[in-house]
Amino acid sequence: MTKKDSQSSRRQFIKSSLVASASVGSTLTAGITSAQPTEKDFLKIDPWTKTQRQNFPNPTYGIPSAFEKKVTRETYNNGSKTPLQKLHGIITPNGLHFERHHGGIPEINPDLHRLVIHGLVDRPIILTMNDIVRFPAVSQINFLECSGNTWAELKKQTWATVQETHGLLSCCEWTGVRLSTLLDQCGVKPGAKWVLAEGADSAAMTRSIPIEKAMDDVIIAYSQNGEMLRPEQGYPLRLFAPGFEGNMSIKWLRRLKLGTEPWQTREETSAYTDLGADGKALQFTFVMGVKSVITTPSAVMKLNAPGFYEISGIAWTGSGKIRRVEVSTDGGKSWDQAILQEPVLDRCLTRFRFPWKWNGDPAVIMSRATDSTGEVQPTLDSVLKARSSNAFYHNNAIQPWLVSSTGEVSNAR
Amino acid sequence: MTKKDSQSSRRQFIKSSLVASASVGSTLTAGITSAQPTEKDFLKIDPWTKTQRQNFPNPTYGIPSAFEKKVTRETYNNGSKTPLQKLHGIITPNGLHFERHHGGIPEINPDLHRLVIHGLVDRPIILTMNDIVRFPAVSQINFLECSGNTWAELKKQTWATVQETHGLLSCCEWTGVRLSTLLDQCGVKPGAKWVLAEGADSAAMTRSIPIEKAMDDVIIAYSQNGEMLRPEQGYPLRLFAPGFEGNMSIKWLRRLKLGTEPWQTREETSAYTDLGADGKALQFTFVMGVKSVITTPSAVMKLNAPGFYEISGIAWTGSGKIRRVEVSTDGGKSWDQAILQEPVLDRCLTRFRFPWKWNGDPAVIMSRATDSTGEVQPTLDSVLKARSSNAFYHNNAIQPWLVSSTGEVSNAR
Repeated sequence: MTKKDSQSSRRQFIKSSLVASASVGSTLTAGITSAQPTEKDFLKIDPWTKTQRQNFPNPTYGIPSAFEKKVTRETYNNGSKTPLQKLHGIITPNGLHFERHHGGIPEINPDLHRLVIHGLVDRPIILTMNDIVRFPAVSQINFLECSGNTWAELKKQTWATVQETHGLLSCCEWTGVRLSTLLDQCGVKPGAKWVLAEGADSAAMTRSIPIEKAMDDVIIAYSQNGEMLRPEQGYPLRLFAPGFEGNMSIKWLRRLKLGTEPWQTREETSAYTDLGADGKALQFTFVMGVKSVITTPSAVMKLNAPGFYEISGIAWTGSGKIRRVEVSTDGGKSWDQAILQEPVLDRCLTRFRFPWKWNGDPAVIMSRATDSTGEVQPTLDSVLKARSSNAFYHNNAIQPWLVSSTGEVSNAR
Repeated sequence: MTKKDSQSSRRQFIKSSLVASASVGSTLTAGITSAQPTEKDFLKIDPWTKTQRQNFPNPTYGIPSAFEKKVTRETYNNGSKTPLQKLHGIITPNGLHFERHHGGIPEINPDLHRLVIHGLVDRPIILTMNDIVRFPAVSQINFLECSGNTWAELKKQTWATVQETHGLLSCCEWTGVRLSTLLDQCGVKPGAKWVLAEGADSAAMTRSIPIEKAMDDVIIAYSQNGEMLRPEQGYPLRLFAPGFEGNMSIKWLRRLKLGTEPWQTREETSAYTDLGADGKALQFTFVMGVKSVITTPSAVMKLNAPGFYEISGIAWTGSGKIRRVEVSTDGGKSWDQAILQEPVLDRCLTRFRFPWKWNGDPAVIMSRATDSTGEVQPTLDSVLKARSSNAFYHNNAIQPWLVSSTGEVSNAR
């Protein structure tokens, strides 16, 4: 089915579903306050229309409505998760971007912050923030996902909501300098094959980045969604490695050292290492696998009655673009293609949508993404088969949600 | 010059500029703290690395760094302006989106809010927010510009910064229901040619939208940049008419009425009407013209010394996509093509970048955009020639900035 065919048949489906709903007074119009509204109903003046509130709330830096105060990150001891079930589209607002820190969130004075580049370079350098923003910049909308996202679901059905199972995932427009621009400036010596990136946090978080990635699409970022980085995102400077596991995108970046070998730091040996089924460590597992999840409906929402629902979710891959998302509403027996919201961007969340008419029977809904390299999102069984029994990271399995006959949605892992 | 040629020659230019800068120790490296840094310099531990701050600041809804507290909207009596000179890329963070209100910002309880659709429809309807989010949704990244943006510069050089001259402009990812989906649901009667949109604010702000636009790309939006609309952006519901003057995108949307003629409300007659050079009112001026502005460097920044600078700015058009942006650094005598940051999206801000080596002489820098319909951003003279002497809206003229020999940047209108 071509994209145009698929969109056209979707429109037809939606139209017939909606008209059917309207004519039989079913769920889509279930919330309508008056079955036969009159002109009097339409011209009723709301209480807030009768009061002028010139300067409310209107702060110089705006905040969400007080009615949205439950839309928050969910914090745990060293991070917090994005409320994916409350979000729309692909952009994560900065206030709700997930975070993960290894030694607390430093409060860095940008005037005193420095980035040093040394090791196998012709001209070692120390840069101020003023120096860095002078370089030619790039902006790119990319997802960021913690390699530990969805970890607990590898073992057993653990968490309730998609915020808990998949909330170590967000997507912003990042702006900064290409690392290749800075390295060109320093002159990379021939033997340099790896770049050590070190944070200025109290964990001095460090990872080794292969030179090929460093010279490709890695940026040294100072902005997210237009404004300067948030403190928990590395203010004033972070490395950003599109498509790589989140911990590689070193925050509060203070140092880059070029060398011949990976440094085998704590965070790439004892931590952030995956064991294969044979018990041997996979060195390394940088690229995030193709993955998707339905965010609406998802646990612990409730469908009030049978009828039309738009199934909506997000898909992403560390290897390129999302090519296709399929949705099943019968526990994986049959699959249909979802509509991808344009633009579909490289190493970026892609919003998918799928029209569904729920007939009131129990249903297991799930999504399966395919990326531009042809990789297909695996089942949990095939993820588990490839790993040792203590596997923790890189769970990109298909996520099922159960809709019960009374409309309750729950994690059906 | 093809895009590839242009990018390649730009890279060469940047590379030679930067290498020249580095080798002669000129401006690009002027801020470097140590001319010949040693290993000791590189391994110096910052004070914030020595302190673990486990839970700072880590709120459930994040806020910017305290060091960024000067990056704010600039408020005036009935609105506020976006700090374009402090922003990067194309996305405006929700807290810095410009606003314009006509009767204060209402505080609406979303559970009590209703959208009514009546007039020339087969099935009048009253929808709750729960009803609205059930419909199939779309997301699109679009700019929003007040038709009064840059108004004072029509008369004389009035404002100092680009926030003041161009800050009634922002860009977000908007999510909502296509108006055509809702109107299909109601059944549009044959004679219906216009849609009256009314806000629930105390001004009951109203505008008439042509049915062709209503059935095309208008959305009834409930989300910006992933989260629910901010109060000042119409929480919980607004109309969003991509490319049209901002006041058409009625906020706090409570009512849509279909009819045969425009309603000629106050806001489309005494307000928001443009007079032509012959003194006759132009009925109507919906579409925002092709426009661009350099945001860095812009007034009242200061270049500390001659050397390499990336000129960066934004371009947009209500008619489609930006096709080309040219930059002049000699007051409009000569023009060179800027690089457009991908993706270039429909009715969206497009970031442009242009490498420039400032030689220390006074220079007037400006940008000129061309859109996909072939329209070219006009000079101020040609804008003025087409208008009456009391013209106020739709100033899309080329904006010049003067860089003085001491590096001060000022408005050169």
